[in-house]
Amino acid sequence: MAGKAQERRKALRKKLIDLAEAHIASDGIGAVKARALAKEANCAVGAIYNVFDDLHDIVIAVNGRTFQRLGQAVADSLVGKEAESPTDQLITMSYAYLEFAAANPNRWRTLFDVQMSTEMVVPQWYLDELERLFGFIAGPVSRCFPEMSAADVALMTRALFSSVHGIVLLGLEKRISAVPPDHLRHMIAMLLVNATGNK
Amino acid sequence: MAGKAQERRKALRKKLIDLAEAHIASDGIGAVKARALAKEANCAVGAIYNVFDDLHDIVIAVNGRTFQRLGQAVADSLVGKEAESPTDQLITMSYAYLEFAAANPNRWRTLFDVQMSTEMVVPQWYLDELERLFGFIAGPVSRCFPEMSAADVALMTRALFSSVHGIVLLGLEKRISAVPPDHLRHMIAMLLVNATGNK
Repeated sequence: MAGKAQERRKALRKKLIDLAEAHIASDGIGAVKARALAKEANCAVGAIYNVFDDLHDIVIAVNGRTFQRLGQAVADSLVGKEAESPTDQLITMSYAYLEFAAANPNRWRTLFDVQMSTEMVVPQWYLDELERLFGFIAGPVSRCFPEMSAADVALMTRALFSSVHGIVLLGLEKRISAVPPDHLRHMIAMLLVNATGNK
Repeated sequence: MAGKAQERRKALRKKLIDLAEAHIASDGIGAVKARALAKEANCAVGAIYNVFDDLHDIVIAVNGRTFQRLGQAVADSLVGKEAESPTDQLITMSYAYLEFAAANPNRWRTLFDVQMSTEMVVPQWYLDELERLFGFIAGPVSRCFPEMSAADVALMTRALFSSVHGIVLLGLEKRISAVPPDHLRHMIAMLLVNATGNK
């Protein structure tokens, strides 16, 4: 019986994550609401809190899926490009990041909308996905800066990720402070070619 | 009498902007609510909509003040640094940007939280402030890249602004994907020194 209850919990968790993901994909993080989820999952509102601590946990679970798909998209972009220069590999990955964000705007934005800071306990799988993503970037970065210390390579990796993120973020939101959307790829390439010395 | 009504409208507008600014400064954009503003301004909720089209307009007015102060902070940072290299001037301005964002987190975040895209009509004063801010950056950028076309200087200016914005944004929100906060200045300098060739 315990096994059956466990399975039912697991099925409800998956169902709630599926439903929340659909809401996030179409309308963003603000569309994740307990009452609506309970109605769609055909369960009581209280039942949600039997399988998740709070709504925040459901969003984190959705972000886990998004993160995994984003990491895969970045990894896939390098397939067959092993012989490219490290700068070109960084540009290739950045374009994949831009394309993922443009194709999945609400899912992508939700990765950053949720309050997740270094001050809270972060799930291990989240850290693992993050390390995997930074691992792809750190390789070419260290080849661009062979004289750089490992600590600085780690910081440069995060700086370049943050820079491309900033260009994609302001660009895709079409803010007037940003680069015009059709120039985004050109800008990313200009920045990375100059920042890495085109190694 | 028309003059007096005009003055009353102007006074109410200013009062509402003051109140909204206080709410934004302490709790962010979500704290701007018509009912609370009306109560604090001692007016009817409908009176708000006599002097503003909607709450969005009040937030834009608050952002106008923030933008003006941000531009001033960036301009002030260059006073006495006229002889610095263009790269050092970009670093100095970026540090001023970081400091402004860190000292005014909610006001700063609201600049980017509000929906303002190239697709909507943007107030002229907003465009003027933006041009003023980019003007500070474009000067040193063009000196770093004397061979670059004016169009590319404009794009590079926006790319570098977006990059520093991304580093500050992810860094200040202490997201695990970002650089550690105490390393932010180092990272900004590393990025700009490399991206500009330290000219």
